[in-house]
Amino acid sequence: MKASELAEKLGGVLEGADVELTACGGLEEAREGDLSFCKDVKHVQLVETTKASAVLLPRDWTSGAPCSIIRVDDPNQACMAAAEIFAPPQPVRKAGIHPTAIIDESVKLGNNVHVGAYSIIEANTVIGDDAIIEAQVFIGENCKVGARTHIYPQVTLREGTIVGKDCIFHCGVRLGGDGYGFNNGRREDGSVYIEKIPQLGIVEIADGVEIGSNTTIDRARIGRTYIGPMTKIDNLVQIGHNVKVKGYSGLIAQSGVAGSTEIGYGCLIWAQAGISGHIKIADGVQVGPQSGVPQSVNEPGRYVIGSPATSLKELAAISLAPKMITKLRQDVKALRQDVEKLANK
Amino acid sequence: MKASELAEKLGGVLEGADVELTACGGLEEAREGDLSFCKDVKHVQLVETTKASAVLLPRDWTSGAPCSIIRVDDPNQACMAAAEIFAPPQPVRKAGIHPTAIIDESVKLGNNVHVGAYSIIEANTVIGDDAIIEAQVFIGENCKVGARTHIYPQVTLREGTIVGKDCIFHCGVRLGGDGYGFNNGRREDGSVYIEKIPQLGIVEIADGVEIGSNTTIDRARIGRTYIGPMTKIDNLVQIGHNVKVKGYSGLIAQSGVAGSTEIGYGCLIWAQAGISGHIKIADGVQVGPQSGVPQSVNEPGRYVIGSPATSLKELAAISLAPKMITKLRQDVKALRQDVEKLANK
Amino acid sequence: MKASELAEKLGGVLEGADVELTACGGLEEAREGDLSFCKDVKHVQLVETTKASAVLLPRDWTSGAPCSIIRVDDPNQACMAAAEIFAPPQPVRKAGIHPTAIIDESVKLGNNVHVGAYSIIEANTVIGDDAIIEAQVFIGENCKVGARTHIYPQVTLREGTIVGKDCIFHCGVRLGGDGYGFNNGRREDGSVYIEKIPQLGIVEIADGVEIGSNTTIDRARIGRTYIGPMTKIDNLVQIGHNVKVKGYSGLIAQSGVAGSTEIGYGCLIWAQAGISGHIKIADGVQVGPQSGVPQSVNEPGRYVIGSPATSLKELAAISLAPKMITKLRQDVKALRQDVEKLANK
Repeated sequence: MKASELAEKLGGVLEGADVELTACGGLEEAREGDLSFCKDVKHVQLVETTKASAVLLPRDWTSGAPCSIIRVDDPNQACMAAAEIFAPPQPVRKAGIHPTAIIDESVKLGNNVHVGAYSIIEANTVIGDDAIIEAQVFIGENCKVGARTHIYPQVTLREGTIVGKDCIFHCGVRLGGDGYGFNNGRREDGSVYIEKIPQLGIVEIADGVEIGSNTTIDRARIGRTYIGPMTKIDNLVQIGHNVKVKGYSGLIAQSGVAGSTEIGYGCLIWAQAGISGHIKIADGVQVGPQSGVPQSVNEPGRYVIGSPATSLKELAAISLAPKMITKLRQDVKALRQDVEKLANK
Repeated sequence: MKASELAEKLGGVLEGADVELTACGGLEEAREGDLSFCKDVKHVQLVETTKASAVLLPRDWTSGAPCSIIRVDDPNQACMAAAEIFAPPQPVRKAGIHPTAIIDESVKLGNNVHVGAYSIIEANTVIGDDAIIEAQVFIGENCKVGARTHIYPQVTLREGTIVGKDCIFHCGVRLGGDGYGFNNGRREDGSVYIEKIPQLGIVEIADGVEIGSNTTIDRARIGRTYIGPMTKIDNLVQIGHNVKVKGYSGLIAQSGVAGSTEIGYGCLIWAQAGISGHIKIADGVQVGPQSGVPQSVNEPGRYVIGSPATSLKELAAISLAPKMITKLRQDVKALRQDVEKLANK
Repeated sequence: MKASELAEKLGGVLEGADVELTACGGLEEAREGDLSFCKDVKHVQLVETTKASAVLLPRDWTSGAPCSIIRVDDPNQACMAAAEIFAPPQPVRKAGIHPTAIIDESVKLGNNVHVGAYSIIEANTVIGDDAIIEAQVFIGENCKVGARTHIYPQVTLREGTIVGKDCIFHCGVRLGGDGYGFNNGRREDGSVYIEKIPQLGIVEIADGVEIGSNTTIDRARIGRTYIGPMTKIDNLVQIGHNVKVKGYSGLIAQSGVAGSTEIGYGCLIWAQAGISGHIKIADGVQVGPQSGVPQSVNEPGRYVIGSPATSLKELAAISLAPKMITKLRQDVKALRQDVEKLANK
């Protein structure tokens, strides 16, 4: 889009060449064809060295720029508006079933459902109104998918999975895989056995849950693995069997929750953190990145960090230990010298 | 199912309303329609506050319950039996090839093989008797899949992968991807090069191996990446090229094993642990959660934990360091005061 | 292949039985049918106990072997050559579109493109010359895939993704999923809200990038998530929205980079490491395995390790703390005794 056309859409004033613009980008990373933005004169140096083709600046900006300028009231907000203009058009998933989709005749489809190419929906499954099942999705028998839920390509829902309304599942999400459960030991004759424990439960996802790419949530051993309303799960997260996430929580990328653990309301589990099985995390608890939580956190709203998880203060104390030890060694050495002096007096 | 019908199947006696029951659940998480259980009077408080519609209790239970009661000999066992009754019916994968499956004419299929919709099996691959290849699976050229092995939807086996009998691969498993291997450096003219090292080997999986959702196992650089018999691998695990897992081991979710490492018999690698490349882990070793093992563990049956991994005792000592340091500082301060007193005497 | 035939191909001399050989393997892991190798007499013991059917040895080897011997000039190099001979034949992906591939009529396909069975390419996407799109791939609208790029089965590219030339994406790679971004807080009436922040940007992958199985790279909130030229990414890696990896870097398995972080040229991020969001990693920095980097690393070429990441020296000091503390306690105890003695003198 021409800078002049964009300036008009944003209610701004163009100065300089009427360049072609195709994307937004930060001042440092921008390149030819990009529109960047700066709201504060303290970043003037970044403006001076930007490779953007145009930059959104406040109306009273006096320091110039090495490219075209579009003056606006609020550069931040204008850049967001421009980003929406530049954004690749959202694909339209019209209601309708692709002729290659294989849908068992016992499946109940709501109104205005979209099912993409090469997707499979097995017997007795129910799909709610306005749901979008994109291409190459697998939904097993006896599942329920709520209204307006959007399932991206190559997601798999094993049999019996229940999904609420307004959920979003990104590519490669795996719901309802067997939990990890084996009985093992030695038989009377001394030979080792490892026997699979049947995983007879299901996964149930409440309303408004978003699940990131390639995240895995296991079916319960018995009963249900439960992800409560408005929980937001990032990519590559692992949720074990019989876990219960009450709701309104966030689980950031590559974190994991082991079997039968309960996560309270409004918790935040940061990236790569791990939570042991069979424990409880109180409401509003935050677990820091890469932390490992071996036992229940009972105090609501607590922040724990480290592996094993402790307080931030305690973690800092461990990091500081070498420095403290060096200081102590000096003190002890000085004491020794003084004691020797006294002894020889 | 009506509580009365269930009570009869379980050999129990119903007291209270003949409610409809649809699932099992723990006392605390149960909700309307759920059957819960309690075997010990010490959990009486949980029984009193449960939201289950019915609860399995011992025949001599005297404390009542806020819902229907089914008295049985062993509430634990009865609940497992009920779970099997409530379990979503296991999908039946009858022998037969779905008409949309694309199977090269050179493929040798055993007896009673199931191949699901939109699955692909390429040239010269051999599938054993009673194997189940579900929908949307990709199996490349020159693979072998043993009898009764069950491959869930959207698994990929790259060319040359060999799989034993009675294996289970959950959705999204990736076998035989290229290992991570590059030669890099600078050419005589100073320019940088990064060259791919051809990954010419295969993945070989022995009998009775179960692999969790979205786990990845790389093909060998040369020879084979080997997963020995009865190994049980959880979700999102990474196994590098030329790794050898001897057998009867467990690798829990999100753990990783780097290239050319050998894991002995009967090891247990806990969640999110990482094991360096080119080392050996002796038989029966356990690696604690989130631990990092930088060098060989030669003592069979050892438990290592921490990053870098050490003994539990050593790890505890590190955690205790701040407390010990605080105590030492007090001792040193007291000593200093006493020495000053002596000096001034 | 017969040992005699192989010996001839390798320019070597066979001694012993003309066994059938099918694969290469290290001395310790080799089994019947395997060819192994040893270049140095210091490993003579491994040769003596190998279960290989034949072993490549230097021409002047005098210690014999428990199996057939093929004498060659350079056993290492000969084994690599043999591995190429034994390697499962690389599948040939001829130019052509499988009749089951669904390609929008607006798609522009270059010359000699291969598109496999059940793959989908949506509107306005452009595929470069000699690109290989294997089976069951999903490529959304408005994507670009450069010449000779090879996409393995079951990869998904969401709309707008741009991919350079000569890239390799392994099975299960997810490009362009929504980044993790939500606004949350409390409304005036006290109720909690969690609102999705639209993810309007794209993913752009430069030339020569290889991405491992089941790795996920999120689309930018605005602008682009950028993976620079020749970057090599291993399996199960997570790259957040708006991350910029300048190029020529390696990211090893299960590592993660949080949103808006910039990774310089020639960095190496080891397995299971995590890098926080909104920071910068200078050129040539190495981040050790399982390390967590909470703030920018500004010094080019620095090696950081630990969680939180620090120097190797500092990390070692933390590990050594318990030993140092034990020593200090002994010193303090001895001092106390000496001070008591002095006081009582």
